[in-house]
Amino acid sequence: MDDETMAGFLAELASPAPAPGGGAAAALQAALGAALVSMVCNLTIGRPRYAEHETTMLSARSGADKARAEALALAAADARAFAAVSDAYKLPKGTDEERAARSRAIQTALVTAAEVPLRTAAVAAAVVGLCARIIDGANVNVLSDVGVAAASARAALDSAAINVRVNTAVMTDADARERATAALAGHLTSVATADSIVRAVGERIGS
Amino acid sequence: MDDETMAGFLAELASPAPAPGGGAAAALQAALGAALVSMVCNLTIGRPRYAEHETTMLSARSGADKARAEALALAAADARAFAAVSDAYKLPKGTDEERAARSRAIQTALVTAAEVPLRTAAVAAAVVGLCARIIDGANVNVLSDVGVAAASARAALDSAAINVRVNTAVMTDADARERATAALAGHLTSVATADSIVRAVGERIGS
Repeated sequence: MDDETMAGFLAELASPAPAPGGGAAAALQAALGAALVSMVCNLTIGRPRYAEHETTMLSARSGADKARAEALALAAADARAFAAVSDAYKLPKGTDEERAARSRAIQTALVTAAEVPLRTAAVAAAVVGLCARIIDGANVNVLSDVGVAAASARAALDSAAINVRVNTAVMTDADARERATAALAGHLTSVATADSIVRAVGERIGS
Repeated sequence: MDDETMAGFLAELASPAPAPGGGAAAALQAALGAALVSMVCNLTIGRPRYAEHETTMLSARSGADKARAEALALAAADARAFAAVSDAYKLPKGTDEERAARSRAIQTALVTAAEVPLRTAAVAAAVVGLCARIIDGANVNVLSDVGVAAASARAALDSAAINVRVNTAVMTDADARERATAALAGHLTSVATADSIVRAVGERIGS
């Protein structure tokens, strides 16, 4: 995926192949948000007018660069996890033993597959946190990009939540399901923060 | 941009170059949503179980394919429009005549620059409309992708709204400003529809 063109990736997403799909899209929404946070930091760092925010911006840029790399890796990981679930469903189910082995393989693959959108949600929540940290010190010429970053991270949270639920809905291991659901709920508290950042940016631009 | 890799585009977005920026990101959010609608249609078309939705899916796929192409073109158009505004600001302002010419050039460039996010908002609203059309007839195995498509289009609407306002805030032509604001408000009615689709998908998956 790293050496695929944007148009090529979107064409693959649009194709009848089920992967890449919504999992990769969610990761890319997070990556877009992370990239914009880096850009805003880059256009604020070193400007005398924003000198008092230098430390915040340097640390936020470092966090955003890492979040972008992780989100890109998650987009690729999602396709692999999807393939593992598909492969498990294709295992033989002729005998009782085969059926039991197949069920175990499916459940193991589902737990792993749910981990990818959970990590995407964690990265998206981190991007929202970075937006909140930089909004007051950002170069005003690119304040709008903080809002777009938060909107993109918000979409990643919504999307990851849907993708986690797709997996938890068919999980039979109640403990694994509850752990995933609880972790997701923690990340989703960032949705309200993202919305308030989008709103705040809109208001400041209009004024 | 068409022949740029995903990682390369994100690195450019993250860089201190002010373009590509939030405008291109908004267009890509819309493109991600459009691509997922195409995928869902592609995985529904031709399946006997969904035969009664065939016409809807064929028409939605055609609309989504067009929306994706337009969104990709808008991502590139945004960078060009941004460059035109920057260039206008760099015009000489030594004499009264130069200052007047510069002001006119800036205002013309701003109207054009506001048109790109307005068109992005229109494409995103169209994607939301496509999600609404396919949600009831979509292959249930990819219903989650309808929700991710709506979340992505919603981010594109929020982002485009911010980007339109960045331009209208500095427009001196009241008529142009009001036209842009009214057109934006029309597209933004799709935000509520997008939210209800994301919610409906979440509920149907959990059940």
